[in-house]
Amino acid sequence: MKKQIIPLFLGLLGLMTGPLLAQDTASSEAVAYAKASDMSYILNTLLFLIGGFLVMWMAAGFAMLEAGLVRTKNVSMQCLKNISLFSVAGIMFWLVGYNLMYDGVDGGFMGTPFPKDIPAPGEDAGDYAAASDWFFQMVFCATTASIVSGTLAERIKFWPFIIFTTILTGILYPITGSWEWGAGWLDAKGFSDFAGSTLVHSVGGWAALAGALILGARKGKYAADGRVIPMPGSSMPLATLGTFILWLGWFGFNGASQLAMGTIEDASSISRIFANTNIAAAAGVVAVIILTQILYKRMDISMALNGALAGLVSITAEPLTPNMYQAALIGAVGGVIVVFVVPLLDKLKIDDVVGAIPVHLIAGIWGTLIVPLTNSDATYGIQLLGVIAIGAFTFIASGLVWYILKLTIGIRVSDAEEAMGLDKVEVGVEAYPEFGQGSARL
Amino acid sequence: MKKQIIPLFLGLLGLMTGPLLAQDTASSEAVAYAKASDMSYILNTLLFLIGGFLVMWMAAGFAMLEAGLVRTKNVSMQCLKNISLFSVAGIMFWLVGYNLMYDGVDGGFMGTPFPKDIPAPGEDAGDYAAASDWFFQMVFCATTASIVSGTLAERIKFWPFIIFTTILTGILYPITGSWEWGAGWLDAKGFSDFAGSTLVHSVGGWAALAGALILGARKGKYAADGRVIPMPGSSMPLATLGTFILWLGWFGFNGASQLAMGTIEDASSISRIFANTNIAAAAGVVAVIILTQILYKRMDISMALNGALAGLVSITAEPLTPNMYQAALIGAVGGVIVVFVVPLLDKLKIDDVVGAIPVHLIAGIWGTLIVPLTNSDATYGIQLLGVIAIGAFTFIASGLVWYILKLTIGIRVSDAEEAMGLDKVEVGVEAYPEFGQGSARL
Amino acid sequence: MKKQIIPLFLGLLGLMTGPLLAQDTASSEAVAYAKASDMSYILNTLLFLIGGFLVMWMAAGFAMLEAGLVRTKNVSMQCLKNISLFSVAGIMFWLVGYNLMYDGVDGGFMGTPFPKDIPAPGEDAGDYAAASDWFFQMVFCATTASIVSGTLAERIKFWPFIIFTTILTGILYPITGSWEWGAGWLDAKGFSDFAGSTLVHSVGGWAALAGALILGARKGKYAADGRVIPMPGSSMPLATLGTFILWLGWFGFNGASQLAMGTIEDASSISRIFANTNIAAAAGVVAVIILTQILYKRMDISMALNGALAGLVSITAEPLTPNMYQAALIGAVGGVIVVFVVPLLDKLKIDDVVGAIPVHLIAGIWGTLIVPLTNSDATYGIQLLGVIAIGAFTFIASGLVWYILKLTIGIRVSDAEEAMGLDKVEVGVEAYPEFGQGSARL
Repeated sequence: MKKQIIPLFLGLLGLMTGPLLAQDTASSEAVAYAKASDMSYILNTLLFLIGGFLVMWMAAGFAMLEAGLVRTKNVSMQCLKNISLFSVAGIMFWLVGYNLMYDGVDGGFMGTPFPKDIPAPGEDAGDYAAASDWFFQMVFCATTASIVSGTLAERIKFWPFIIFTTILTGILYPITGSWEWGAGWLDAKGFSDFAGSTLVHSVGGWAALAGALILGARKGKYAADGRVIPMPGSSMPLATLGTFILWLGWFGFNGASQLAMGTIEDASSISRIFANTNIAAAAGVVAVIILTQILYKRMDISMALNGALAGLVSITAEPLTPNMYQAALIGAVGGVIVVFVVPLLDKLKIDDVVGAIPVHLIAGIWGTLIVPLTNSDATYGIQLLGVIAIGAFTFIASGLVWYILKLTIGIRVSDAEEAMGLDKVEVGVEAYPEFGQGSARL
Repeated sequence: MKKQIIPLFLGLLGLMTGPLLAQDTASSEAVAYAKASDMSYILNTLLFLIGGFLVMWMAAGFAMLEAGLVRTKNVSMQCLKNISLFSVAGIMFWLVGYNLMYDGVDGGFMGTPFPKDIPAPGEDAGDYAAASDWFFQMVFCATTASIVSGTLAERIKFWPFIIFTTILTGILYPITGSWEWGAGWLDAKGFSDFAGSTLVHSVGGWAALAGALILGARKGKYAADGRVIPMPGSSMPLATLGTFILWLGWFGFNGASQLAMGTIEDASSISRIFANTNIAAAAGVVAVIILTQILYKRMDISMALNGALAGLVSITAEPLTPNMYQAALIGAVGGVIVVFVVPLLDKLKIDDVVGAIPVHLIAGIWGTLIVPLTNSDATYGIQLLGVIAIGAFTFIASGLVWYILKLTIGIRVSDAEEAMGLDKVEVGVEAYPEFGQGSARL
Repeated sequence: MKKQIIPLFLGLLGLMTGPLLAQDTASSEAVAYAKASDMSYILNTLLFLIGGFLVMWMAAGFAMLEAGLVRTKNVSMQCLKNISLFSVAGIMFWLVGYNLMYDGVDGGFMGTPFPKDIPAPGEDAGDYAAASDWFFQMVFCATTASIVSGTLAERIKFWPFIIFTTILTGILYPITGSWEWGAGWLDAKGFSDFAGSTLVHSVGGWAALAGALILGARKGKYAADGRVIPMPGSSMPLATLGTFILWLGWFGFNGASQLAMGTIEDASSISRIFANTNIAAAAGVVAVIILTQILYKRMDISMALNGALAGLVSITAEPLTPNMYQAALIGAVGGVIVVFVVPLLDKLKIDDVVGAIPVHLIAGIWGTLIVPLTNSDATYGIQLLGVIAIGAFTFIASGLVWYILKLTIGIRVSDAEEAMGLDKVEVGVEAYPEFGQGSARL
């Protein structure tokens, strides 16, 4: 027996130490090998941060686009509005919006309107850093507010605009956002809006449209005899710069909406989204320059720029499933929308200074409705339901807010102030104090 | 025997389960450890996407640089051309160029001119996402077209320029590109052009030179008595902004041309490229400001900006092997080239509105020829061969296209239209409609 | 015994092969699993590169901010200064500064002032690529120089400014930097400055203040009767663009100062820094617009922009430990500083053209002193010591350099040249040659 003890002992030792040492090996190697969950967490977080700073940069894009498309006398005000709305959006989405949109929606109509503090780095479990998600979602919220400011430029007062922004970014956007991205009732029904053609762009567009209707057109824009008086923007290069900034930022907007970068499938999807996003924008531009050449025998720089943006908005609801032909088609229709809707709005005497309604609202609807063409998980019926539900809520709620603001503190400057320009009235500094009056000063 | 069965059994169990359990451990940990190939794929893809969006941003840089260096009356047109060429490049490089450049070149002269669809995310094998590579290569193609638009500004018609861009980005650039980056005959010979001093910058420069010769100088630029009439650009801050944008984008241009980020050696190489790229640009600026101070007793802002760009172009053929002294030297010579070639072109009455020929063509040649100084895999002979072969092909083919366009639809606006400015003629909107005429209005 | 040999043998085999095979498994899988140290190296390096290019982009932000806040006649010069200082900083920080700041400081007062070449990619050991660290630290150094150029605009000569920049970026900034980030004496004492409220922003501010005192105010800025004559900047949209660029770049500035991204805790920390950085900037803006509305019954665009920047500077000393309420408070106080310090400087007849002293110096001091509120590793006493030590050294050393420059080559243009504008005198090209004189030409 004694002698058998040795092999027995050794056998047992082998039994125990084999896996044990193996684990030892593994755990001494565990220092050396990267955990998949860690890598996933880091890469997902990195995606949110890169995507987030690119979308944050879109705030500068809107500022430049609008500064370029308003007249000189309102440029400082437009700049001030843009940096202020981005600031207000950041604060409101933290204080109220984020949790209203994401916390405990569960198939319902909104979450909890109370801020939660970001977990300390050591306790920040999950698939990504909590703060990176907040940052990424916050810049989407701010984008929505940016859309509104362009349409209402040149005649709205500063503070009512800021109050509206406070409500839009703190309450209205998060509520409709919760319906889909917060896993609310629309998501449960199968509505599909990848990066926000409806949730961001149309919502901004509806809020802008409600404001434009209640605020009215700029004085002199629509002559008594029905003519539309052109009020050309102050700086085409700034408008162009703004468009390029938005185009760049859109790679973050759509690409990072994949929400994960920890697998090769995610990385591949993000790449496909980049390619589709670019081709849709390009097709939007090309559609506009060809169409304006045919219709007007010349090009129109602001339409070409808006063509890029409309292409981008159009592909935003579904940038992943289309192949590149389909992406080009979807974007090109966005461009066509710009060419036809811009004059249509003027016929309806809806004064949209920068063209945000065709670009963000109409192309946003188009992009949302066309999702089922390439994504078999979506249906035309539910897409339409989502467009109508979100549109109706935002238009009515925004209209109500604008109307209450109009009745109480007033939303519009006086005619004399409008003629003088908002910069002198509310900002007290001209945008370009040293440049003399040119040919088209209005 | 019975009693021996236990240790035998245990021994066998140990034999089997040791590795088995270990493998179990490993495979339960296999869920937990990140696969090197996955990480590589994701990081390579991420490099292409980040590099790609930085190079995409260079399109805005060219737009701002050119908008700043042309006169007010042509600024809107220059903006329109830049956003249009970027769009056309994206579409053409997808429809024709990408596969012409990369698909089945095999030591030859071009690939297959048919688009291939991007694989679905689940089937996207390889070392990186297919679409990320497409995106990254596409923005390089667009950069080539951007170079052309600056030289030919202020007198070329819109549509002939767009047609040329279509051919350049769909056919000409991809053909010479295939010779080297598509693993064609020049690559087989050992030609070395890391990120495209020749393949991108000189190609753009040659196409611009051919265009400038066939198009002719702007009216009034060269007086009958031989004097050169200065036609100062409309906005130095926009030109400066454009230069900074290009400088920023160049980190993606050169850095991501490492094409991989999955190993520490790749990450280290990309970092070295960043440092060398920056020091070359810095040396280009410093060379120009010192030289212009010595030669002219003052500085010249547009030369300083072009000094940065020439430094960047110079280091682009080989940003990895130089040490920082060498990188500084290579970039500084780029700056010197600007100072001497800009007036030389004027002597030759070649009217290059933004200085693209010295910056992209001449500095591109310099950068390509100097590669063997630091990279022992390259030889001066083969570098010269590459410069000549690609130069000859591009210059002749571009010249032919320009000439055919001139004979058919015409490439130049009338003298009256040129005097009026392209904005009024073809874009129908002024860039700055409200700014009056200043001291230097020409 | 024979029969016992089998189980003995098998037992031993099990003992040996269990772990062996397990290791085999592990090492055949070792090809397949990503090493944690590699991933860490790559991700840390990537963080430096992304952070680095974002901070590099801040150079463009300063250029645009300053171009927008100086008068038309000095805009080209301001652009030239900004691209030149960024170039000079890059070269000097490589030739002298980097090693002076980091190499062998060891609790002392400076390192070794000799450049070391970047290791070849294959030999680049450590936790990150050496060149990525150089690049990241270099752009911080350049930021310091950027701060100075704004304050001294419109009357300083080009070359003395460049000489000062050479000394600041090669010697002064690296010396005080070594005290803390180079692990020098202040770091040993427990001074805390996460991303450089003091090391970068206050240092730039002190250098600017010393320069402003020695250089004197612009002619006509302070009337004999004590009135302050407004000299409004030439372009509010460019100033706005510059601010948005700086805001964007700040995510790299603060976020990448975490210096590592290889663990989930690091990724979580970076994200928290992004969120805090944004909320501080937003709070700075909101504080300014509310305060200016209350105090002046109108808004001031340049103050709102500076409010964002002051919020950013304030949070820079400690962007990680505050919760978002605290971050908002810290940033809001930054905004309040702008509103009160800008007029205070005017009362003291210190002419700070762009407001860099309140934004970078005063808010930098505030941000540094408030660190102990949220970071228990810091004490108010040591924070104050750091502020005073670095402030005293920089103010005295800078003042000495400015004074020597004044006595030798002179630092100020003549009154006639100042009236004419630096663009005509030193740059020889106007910023906007075609724009006529407007209402506020001074």
